[in-house]
Amino acid sequence: MTGPRRGRGRPSRAEAAAGPGTRERILEAARAEFAERGYDKTSVRGIAKAAGVDPALVHHYFGTKDEVFAAAIELSFEPALIVPAIVGGPAEGIGERLARYFLSVWENPVTRAPLLAVIRSALTHEAAAKVLRGFVLRRLLQRVAADLDVPDPEFRAELAASHMIGIAILRYVVQVEPLASARPEDIVAMVAPTLQRYLTED
Amino acid sequence: MTGPRRGRGRPSRAEAAAGPGTRERILEAARAEFAERGYDKTSVRGIAKAAGVDPALVHHYFGTKDEVFAAAIELSFEPALIVPAIVGGPAEGIGERLARYFLSVWENPVTRAPLLAVIRSALTHEAAAKVLRGFVLRRLLQRVAADLDVPDPEFRAELAASHMIGIAILRYVVQVEPLASARPEDIVAMVAPTLQRYLTED
Repeated sequence: MTGPRRGRGRPSRAEAAAGPGTRERILEAARAEFAERGYDKTSVRGIAKAAGVDPALVHHYFGTKDEVFAAAIELSFEPALIVPAIVGGPAEGIGERLARYFLSVWENPVTRAPLLAVIRSALTHEAAAKVLRGFVLRRLLQRVAADLDVPDPEFRAELAASHMIGIAILRYVVQVEPLASARPEDIVAMVAPTLQRYLTED
Repeated sequence: MTGPRRGRGRPSRAEAAAGPGTRERILEAARAEFAERGYDKTSVRGIAKAAGVDPALVHHYFGTKDEVFAAAIELSFEPALIVPAIVGGPAEGIGERLARYFLSVWENPVTRAPLLAVIRSALTHEAAAKVLRGFVLRRLLQRVAADLDVPDPEFRAELAASHMIGIAILRYVVQVEPLASARPEDIVAMVAPTLQRYLTED
């Protein structure tokens, strides 16, 4: 798996010309484009235009469209920051921390929109499904599973993920009541013990 | 909510002309059409053609395209037959019965294809989402919830449904490992206690 090109060390000539904050601007533009247009209709050229940069710079920072897509999703979940905070804390609160974090990401319209785009795209386009499978879920699941002390940690982590994805779909996409209008606290109260069991009990 | 027109009592002239088994033939054709073409591209005319009947007969039996869609989904789940068997049995086995039944529907390619079409359609077309919301989930959830002895039974039933829908999406649609290749028995063993808690414990 090749990661996004982050231009470590001395900045290249292209980066120096683009100025600081360019990578972040491209990523925000990509997130907005994918959320608005869906996977299929978003192009590297369109992302570059929205960010006000040359398409070559998008390729320089991220590589292919799929790699921009993966980076844009990761931006919503920030796994590098969040996973240690959720998994690394006291074991007895992991289910509640995970449920609470997941709902907060979905309750926020800024992070919800691109996630909706991801799920919609992944269900209708194999290319987007492949990105979700390869870059995101494997990266996220493996990172979570590495810190779990249960048999089949990746299977457990994925069962937890499946529950939260299903909740997101019924609550935010299909909007089926009573889940669509339930208070986040009531959802956390019911779901946290489930996630707790998957992630910590033999 | 108006149900599908089932032609109770004395058969109409149209039904008499169509012969026995016509309703079932239309429904099978509808299921195949929705599975193959998706919600948007399926028409009452196309369903009629596939079933070898006049489009007026499709309208006669089912009403609108949305009502055919709902009936085609119900055909996969057969809630009228299944819900009493799952919910009506001994309370301590309800989680396992539900998990086992749900996986069996998804493991069978004949019933899986139209369900995939439903989920894909509901996530990308508001009209299909409305059908899923109105006809199916409410009908199914309410039927299950009516027999539960817990607070907020519809909320509980929907949380159980959300888990199973999330599993279906990761296992059969996005196909993320290790869930995609897990043995059904291993999934049932982990998920049944969760469903059991949602559906029976205060």
